[in-house]
Amino acid sequence: MNLQQLLRIQLPIIQAPMAGVAGSELAIAVCNAGGLGSLPCATLSLDVLRQELQLIRKHTTCPFNVNFFCHAEPEPNSSREEAWRATVSPYFDEYGIINDVASISTPGRLSISWEAVEVLAEFEPPVVSFHFGLPPADMLAKVRSWGAKILSSATTVEEALWLQAKGVDAIIAQGLEAGGHRGMFLSDDLNAQAGTFALVPQIVRAVKVPVIAAGGIADANGVAAALVLGAAGVQIGTAYLLCPEAKTSNLHRAALKSDAANVTAVTNLFSGRPARAIVNRLMRELGPCNVIAPAFPLAATAIAPLRRKAESQGSTDFSPLWAGQNVSGCKEVPAAMLTKSFVHSLNEA
Amino acid sequence: MNLQQLLRIQLPIIQAPMAGVAGSELAIAVCNAGGLGSLPCATLSLDVLRQELQLIRKHTTCPFNVNFFCHAEPEPNSSREEAWRATVSPYFDEYGIINDVASISTPGRLSISWEAVEVLAEFEPPVVSFHFGLPPADMLAKVRSWGAKILSSATTVEEALWLQAKGVDAIIAQGLEAGGHRGMFLSDDLNAQAGTFALVPQIVRAVKVPVIAAGGIADANGVAAALVLGAAGVQIGTAYLLCPEAKTSNLHRAALKSDAANVTAVTNLFSGRPARAIVNRLMRELGPCNVIAPAFPLAATAIAPLRRKAESQGSTDFSPLWAGQNVSGCKEVPAAMLTKSFVHSLNEA
Repeated sequence: MNLQQLLRIQLPIIQAPMAGVAGSELAIAVCNAGGLGSLPCATLSLDVLRQELQLIRKHTTCPFNVNFFCHAEPEPNSSREEAWRATVSPYFDEYGIINDVASISTPGRLSISWEAVEVLAEFEPPVVSFHFGLPPADMLAKVRSWGAKILSSATTVEEALWLQAKGVDAIIAQGLEAGGHRGMFLSDDLNAQAGTFALVPQIVRAVKVPVIAAGGIADANGVAAALVLGAAGVQIGTAYLLCPEAKTSNLHRAALKSDAANVTAVTNLFSGRPARAIVNRLMRELGPCNVIAPAFPLAATAIAPLRRKAESQGSTDFSPLWAGQNVSGCKEVPAAMLTKSFVHSLNEA
Repeated sequence: MNLQQLLRIQLPIIQAPMAGVAGSELAIAVCNAGGLGSLPCATLSLDVLRQELQLIRKHTTCPFNVNFFCHAEPEPNSSREEAWRATVSPYFDEYGIINDVASISTPGRLSISWEAVEVLAEFEPPVVSFHFGLPPADMLAKVRSWGAKILSSATTVEEALWLQAKGVDAIIAQGLEAGGHRGMFLSDDLNAQAGTFALVPQIVRAVKVPVIAAGGIADANGVAAALVLGAAGVQIGTAYLLCPEAKTSNLHRAALKSDAANVTAVTNLFSGRPARAIVNRLMRELGPCNVIAPAFPLAATAIAPLRRKAESQGSTDFSPLWAGQNVSGCKEVPAAMLTKSFVHSLNEA
């Protein structure tokens, strides 16, 4: 069974779930164009999750994907948080705002919960993908109970084998070029993170389930090349960031269109976990990776007031400008048009 | 004109020049199998260069490539060298050997020189490739005078445009997966270094000359995928390291065959310039990158006595175990067989 048959989609294209910049509107557009649209749920309250799922069910009859994080909740570490607060304090002073340590206790991004699964059960999404591993077995079984296909990301061969052993239906091989959070969950060694060209064929060789290539893929040639490497399909994120249906901020859009977008780095400053973003002032001055950044996802809230204030003045110095290493596919066109452009010929799909 | 026509080779496969681990024997084997064998010349004395060229001319009538570095000579920096000597001193003590600062003055790797060009002129190699940019215009003109085709590596779109403006015949797009030295020469920002999947299509779009993909390519599917991305051919290094014709040391071979080879990093500790190698003790403890490592190529000689002593005791703790991010193509088979395995069907080549 190929990926399209497995997920009941027309094109072997998955729109990457991108928390904060993608919602139901983008997912619906991609689904209706024949790809698999994805709703990132990590930052949604249960009410908003339900609203978004209602919108998707209303506007498409096609299969869609909902994506959840499944990280362990961070353990409080007051000395580390205090050290981080002191490190970023000069920036708060610069903007004349109070560096409120209490803000660090707000997570911002949530792991999948039983409450969220109950909301999902109302809508029975056909595909559920995970980042940072998988949820506990009983929760995964519940998600499977309505027939959902399960996807998760692997950044190494070891992670791919682990996911296969847990019974996932397909594995997303996330190459180092990819924008946003590295899905890594068995090791925190960034040196073990390989580029798409090296990673995809090694995972394809190691597992029996379909492999979805991600990272650096931005056009039809990229999709075709990934299939030649043995992938059954691709997941594309960055290229969708300029689509009108994306919720990408104007400042983020401007950055993606600038030369700055050619220099990205994997940073932990914005969330506590390694993620690829366009290099900006905070990354240059404190990173891109810094051991004292609070544990995921606390680092995000730790600088949230600073980010808000700076953005209100037109500055992205403290904003996570998520992007992969290939922004050449970013186009200000409807997501349906972009999705269809990823396959050389629809007849072949 | 395609790459095979340009270089007069049968297969679109270039064996990467790998100083220290590859010599005339490997180049000859690849040439006679229909690929472009490469002789790395950066560590060769003029006498050895002449001997190697004599061997190549004697054992193959096919076109071959000679590769030279063209870095600027390092400026002496006694305080940096002294700091480095102090940093590595405990390792010398551990092995009971003297940390002789004088050894730092021996370069080990040489930029192309007029004397070397005179030796080349005796043999008129059909292809000459460069790393770290290009030599001065008059020297390049001399190399061109016998009809040699000129190649050089680009690690960014900017470097590719620079090389095209200087009139190179083809550009090697060196993705971040690649083993050994990053060819970067316009910027020292490692964040600007993209993976093969992101880099190749962007360079292909930017230039008119043929583009040779390098980095993470290890088998026929990898070659085919690179061509789909728009490359006219590929350069493959790591996969050749276990061939009997390679001069790879037994310790290096053992490392390549071990699980350790799955974790590489870009390090400047072994030469002073960023290069990808299997992570070992020195990289773990002092790097992988360290700002006080002596300027290229002095760092290599700075630890040479330590490396020698450790290797004599079977340790690779201080050895540069060059490797790319995809060692899955490393096979203990003759280089001719390996070269031919890189194309799905010789009839299509």
